[in-house]
Amino acid sequence: MGASGPAEFIEALRAQSQRYHSHHAFHVKMNEGRLSRRQIQGWVANRFYYQKNLPLKDAAIISNCPEPAVRRRWIQRILDQDGTAEGEGGIEAWLRLGEAVGLTREELWDERHVVPGVRFAVDAYVNFARTRPWIEAVAASLTELFAPDLMATRLAAFERYYPWIDPAGLAYFRARLTQAPRDAEHALDVVVKFCRTAEQQAKAVAALAFKCDVLWSMLDAIERAYPDSE
Amino acid sequence: MGASGPAEFIEALRAQSQRYHSHHAFHVKMNEGRLSRRQIQGWVANRFYYQKNLPLKDAAIISNCPEPAVRRRWIQRILDQDGTAEGEGGIEAWLRLGEAVGLTREELWDERHVVPGVRFAVDAYVNFARTRPWIEAVAASLTELFAPDLMATRLAAFERYYPWIDPAGLAYFRARLTQAPRDAEHALDVVVKFCRTAEQQAKAVAALAFKCDVLWSMLDAIERAYPDSE
Repeated sequence: MGASGPAEFIEALRAQSQRYHSHHAFHVKMNEGRLSRRQIQGWVANRFYYQKNLPLKDAAIISNCPEPAVRRRWIQRILDQDGTAEGEGGIEAWLRLGEAVGLTREELWDERHVVPGVRFAVDAYVNFARTRPWIEAVAASLTELFAPDLMATRLAAFERYYPWIDPAGLAYFRARLTQAPRDAEHALDVVVKFCRTAEQQAKAVAALAFKCDVLWSMLDAIERAYPDSE
Repeated sequence: MGASGPAEFIEALRAQSQRYHSHHAFHVKMNEGRLSRRQIQGWVANRFYYQKNLPLKDAAIISNCPEPAVRRRWIQRILDQDGTAEGEGGIEAWLRLGEAVGLTREELWDERHVVPGVRFAVDAYVNFARTRPWIEAVAASLTELFAPDLMATRLAAFERYYPWIDPAGLAYFRARLTQAPRDAEHALDVVVKFCRTAEQQAKAVAALAFKCDVLWSMLDAIERAYPDSE
């Protein structure tokens, strides 16, 4: 079986959006304003474990990538997430979100709320980036193709349904509205450029499916840990 | 056995300078102006394999490091070596050195001159950074404590003994005169801060000894591949 043309390959990647966690019941409920304060806190604290591991994941991709031009662009993700100074960056923005929903920085950093299923899923993603070919880890990042829609919906939902959260705490989501499309566009260019054979393209699609599983599995674990009844 | 105080620990690290490759016969000959054009070319081409792997090594350290403040500072090394745009950075400077000694960029990138002993030593260093605790890989970088003296000697030697090399090609060494002390100072602060127990300190010293072996072993292999008689 031959390789697909770029358009078909991109379509196969975009088709993974049906597995994106925006369709998960917990996310649907979040965006319909039906989560309790405790459920929101549980989601924020567990999702922080994902956030704080992103620079390790992105550094693993750079560590495995022999292409200076790709590294030179990919490093922007680490700069965005860690910031270039104390008090800046995506991790800091997520800590402020935590404070806005009533959590301390300490309880976000010390992982006391992180449930095993979230830890396993996030660690699987970091290990994927460390051990698999760098281009597959780049393909796994392509969930960002689907992120801006979710971010826009989430921002509107939070401001409408959860007025107890200070809107200043939502800065992370606002930043991702512009960062995610920019990052996804670059990652897509790289994946299309380096995945030429049918086998490479199949592995890229599989990597993206794997990443959708990571995000979905996180919400499964969070949903179970923070049920409606409480 | 208890941990050493910072001063003793730093002294134990600095004592590794006696194992630094500045004492290797090939380096001594280089700085005495006794290397042939072919020997200089062989050294530049093989050392390029080390240079091009440095961002992968530094990204591995970042990928294993849970300390945002350390990552935020360490990323500067990748920015220095890869540059922030095409045509900048340490790798580019080394390619220009290659051109100044009569090698093409292509023959530097394609590794045709890289001898097995150099490959094994450099790969061992990258694997060390990928697989060992991040603080040990930071300690391994402390050969930079010893580098500025060598760089200053080398710059003077190249300008005096190898006038056939365009001095513009020596920009990499000039940049390292200021970068290496700055990087080494930060790495030393981090190692002293995070290596508190006797066991941690012993592992840091061992990591630095390992790194001295990497650099020494590279020169052994280069010396054998480019003997005087040729």
